[in-house]
Amino acid sequence: MPKEVVKAEELARKQREISVSEFFAKNRHLLGFDNPTRALLMTVKEFVDNSIDACNEMRVPGDIKVELKQLSENRFIVIVEDNGPGIVKDQIPKVFGKLLYGSKFFSMKQSMGQQGLGASVAVLYSQLTTGKPIKVISRISPKKPAHYYELQINTQKNEPEILKEKDVDWKVDHGTKVEIELEGRYQKGKQSVDEYVKQISIANPHISITYKTPEGTLKYQRAVNELPVEPKEIKPHPYGIELGNLISMLSHTKARTLQSFLTTEFSRIGSGTAKEMCSKSSLNPNDKPSKLTNEQIEKLFKAMQDTKIIAPPTDCLSPIKAEVLEKALKKEYEAEFIITTTRSPVVYRGFPFQIEVGIVYNSKWPQDEQTRLIRLANRVPLLYQQGACAITEAVTDTNWKSYGLQQSGNNLPAGPAIIVVHMASVWVPFTSEAKEAVAHYEDIIKEIKLALQECGRKLSIYIHKNIRAREQKERASLFDAYIPELATALNKLSGEPKTKIEQGLRKRLKKDLPLLMVGEENVKK
Amino acid sequence: MPKEVVKAEELARKQREISVSEFFAKNRHLLGFDNPTRALLMTVKEFVDNSIDACNEMRVPGDIKVELKQLSENRFIVIVEDNGPGIVKDQIPKVFGKLLYGSKFFSMKQSMGQQGLGASVAVLYSQLTTGKPIKVISRISPKKPAHYYELQINTQKNEPEILKEKDVDWKVDHGTKVEIELEGRYQKGKQSVDEYVKQISIANPHISITYKTPEGTLKYQRAVNELPVEPKEIKPHPYGIELGNLISMLSHTKARTLQSFLTTEFSRIGSGTAKEMCSKSSLNPNDKPSKLTNEQIEKLFKAMQDTKIIAPPTDCLSPIKAEVLEKALKKEYEAEFIITTTRSPVVYRGFPFQIEVGIVYNSKWPQDEQTRLIRLANRVPLLYQQGACAITEAVTDTNWKSYGLQQSGNNLPAGPAIIVVHMASVWVPFTSEAKEAVAHYEDIIKEIKLALQECGRKLSIYIHKNIRAREQKERASLFDAYIPELATALNKLSGEPKTKIEQGLRKRLKKDLPLLMVGEENVKK
Repeated sequence: MPKEVVKAEELARKQREISVSEFFAKNRHLLGFDNPTRALLMTVKEFVDNSIDACNEMRVPGDIKVELKQLSENRFIVIVEDNGPGIVKDQIPKVFGKLLYGSKFFSMKQSMGQQGLGASVAVLYSQLTTGKPIKVISRISPKKPAHYYELQINTQKNEPEILKEKDVDWKVDHGTKVEIELEGRYQKGKQSVDEYVKQISIANPHISITYKTPEGTLKYQRAVNELPVEPKEIKPHPYGIELGNLISMLSHTKARTLQSFLTTEFSRIGSGTAKEMCSKSSLNPNDKPSKLTNEQIEKLFKAMQDTKIIAPPTDCLSPIKAEVLEKALKKEYEAEFIITTTRSPVVYRGFPFQIEVGIVYNSKWPQDEQTRLIRLANRVPLLYQQGACAITEAVTDTNWKSYGLQQSGNNLPAGPAIIVVHMASVWVPFTSEAKEAVAHYEDIIKEIKLALQECGRKLSIYIHKNIRAREQKERASLFDAYIPELATALNKLSGEPKTKIEQGLRKRLKKDLPLLMVGEENVKK
Repeated sequence: MPKEVVKAEELARKQREISVSEFFAKNRHLLGFDNPTRALLMTVKEFVDNSIDACNEMRVPGDIKVELKQLSENRFIVIVEDNGPGIVKDQIPKVFGKLLYGSKFFSMKQSMGQQGLGASVAVLYSQLTTGKPIKVISRISPKKPAHYYELQINTQKNEPEILKEKDVDWKVDHGTKVEIELEGRYQKGKQSVDEYVKQISIANPHISITYKTPEGTLKYQRAVNELPVEPKEIKPHPYGIELGNLISMLSHTKARTLQSFLTTEFSRIGSGTAKEMCSKSSLNPNDKPSKLTNEQIEKLFKAMQDTKIIAPPTDCLSPIKAEVLEKALKKEYEAEFIITTTRSPVVYRGFPFQIEVGIVYNSKWPQDEQTRLIRLANRVPLLYQQGACAITEAVTDTNWKSYGLQQSGNNLPAGPAIIVVHMASVWVPFTSEAKEAVAHYEDIIKEIKLALQECGRKLSIYIHKNIRAREQKERASLFDAYIPELATALNKLSGEPKTKIEQGLRKRLKKDLPLLMVGEENVKK
């Protein structure tokens, strides 16, 4: 055989399918599992996010228990328990033992999880670093038994392997509890599990969290009793799809005419709009969707982009809401002043999203330190990759000097404040699977800046009225205290009556700083 | 049914497997396909990287043809053709029409591609933005026919869909040609296709590339005729595996004893070392690998980490080599001075890697501009994410002032230079699937810095000897020119003979700047 055939055959023999588990096991840093400190955080995060999503789905006020049990310096058992709806028995193995399996990936509504990836990658990481299975108990009703599983992932097949399985007694009516052993490191600071738990309770003030660390137990009580608005699932908006999606939707649709395809599978296309699109692309509304040629589909796609369509419905979103965010921040921080705002929903690439901002201010906090920035996406705190995040860009691009904070160049502002930014969307465009930074879409950055400016203006008014005013008042009252002595001296020099001089000076002070003197008559003698 | 059961059942019905194609179609920005400019670059990159890998595998000097055919402002056809070994007929559909399919993922040797992902994601992107199939011709020998395919990806199944398939006449003896239509934008600059082609030809001086753009044809001739060293496949090193890997290797091995498992499936474990590991973990070398309990495996794992083992073999690497890199740089840049170095291979986490650095200097280039940094990983240029890359960190952490360049704070240096850094490894730890930045491993950064310092010192000597010397010489000769006038003046003041004064001044100049004056007698009159 000629040498090139040998080579081609040899290469062909080496070709292999790579399972998604094998891929993410080797590339687990892509999901944030790249060192023990971060892996501990990611594990807690993935399971807590899933628990809160489950409780919200069921419309029960979530009670989440998180425990970090330290076995040795870098070995932990993480336990997360919720009072959600539980998981149907035959789904338990796949939910935890198969990557890319879930209910949220195809759903157009706001949720914390979106990829069907996180929890099972935590299982994969546990398995890689300790060889131990995940232990799951779940129950869907007091009338049904609780199911116990010990699971691992068969990485070559990306399928769950059931090591143990039995019905067990469990005191809980419904819910899920997972126990997972892993190599981890428990640290304090801005990117710690402690900080994550604190921030997630701010972002989800309707949830109560009991958090047991190696050092003690913290209890985050819910700040509000009302559940957040339930997000509704929506259909894709014509502006949010791509040609390839349209081709695939047309070939899979159950609709028998193009007209009914357009009106039933998209949001905001009524029969009038559908007809307009068809006529723009020289198609018959009664055509069979699956019969369209590629050229016809391309024309239809163009017509869809060129037709004026109102923005998608926004009830797929569930913002924290300004007044609730304020309560939550008040509970966690000793604030002197809090401003919060929730903007109206807008759209990027056909996806609705909504921005919320909160600023906590306390003049007693250090004046020269960088302000803390809390980034939230679909109520999940983002603790890593601050520099790569669109939220950070929006904050550093805002002129904070005019709002009473210090700022050098395009850095984060400095001053005694905490800035909270929340982006809620049916699809947050993260820059990586680890979901730590929002991608730089112009529409998103613009909206965040508007929200920051709105809060910034109120902060500026507060600072000028109260802080600057207090400073000026202090200066004024100092001057005021010297008026008698000054008057005596001037009287000696000029011969004018002392009282007249005093009155004149006081009048002058009052005229220059009228605001300051209001209700401050007692300052003067 | 109680409400929680209803909810659990409802959620269960929504659970679905997400195919890896669906996942990466929605998350294609993770692979760099997030806007038309970058998508065009990524498409060229993925196919060219594969072509060069194929030619290297076959040990033929690669001749690669790249063409960008512009159809409209943002529609392109990308054509890439190579003279590699071709692809066996029944493998063609999977190689281009299935994500996570390939020969390099499990192989421990240096290659450009490593994930089995890039080319098929380009096909996915083409399909999403144009609905068109990829066209492939491949032939493995002049004695066999060439095969033509038109392929798409069934995203729900992550399987290729064959639209057309036939044998065709093709003038080429062996090789592969792909033609793919996509939404793209052709731009100039640092992150352009033009720049990629230039840099890849520097990193692969044994390859010749014909590059046809909408503006004309560029020809990059090979700078050297020898092929690079062929990298050998190696076995994993005990320090580079994790507990989970060991468990899975033990359960899949064909070895019948622990002793033979250790000596045959790892590199650098001889029978003595194997026995030492067994005794350290209280195991019998004759134990059956699959019979070990989890506790026993954990002990074995610990023993493997605690046993002194020599570094892995490094013939899995194929560096560019200092003298070849120098030739390649000389060909592409008008250099006044070039220094290159290839360090000895070292190891991070059990993976061998090797650092090469080149510095091109030309004092006629702008003095105040930032130096260009060319980052290469396994001979592939990295054009995006410079700020997030360990290579950049190593460069900015180096003190360039002491090497004759300017540098403010921890920024890239400024000056008339181009810095090239190449990391060759069996496994480059990229920060994302888009493979644009090297992750921050201490061992890697340290090694890069050592290489930079080595070149930096030589640069510094050159600059001081030639550039600074020339500057001083210019100043000295200026002074020299004024000596007669100065002598006249001093003669008038002091009455000393003019010639004596002149001689004294010249002597002084010679004493202070002896180096400058050597062989420069003609400067003086």
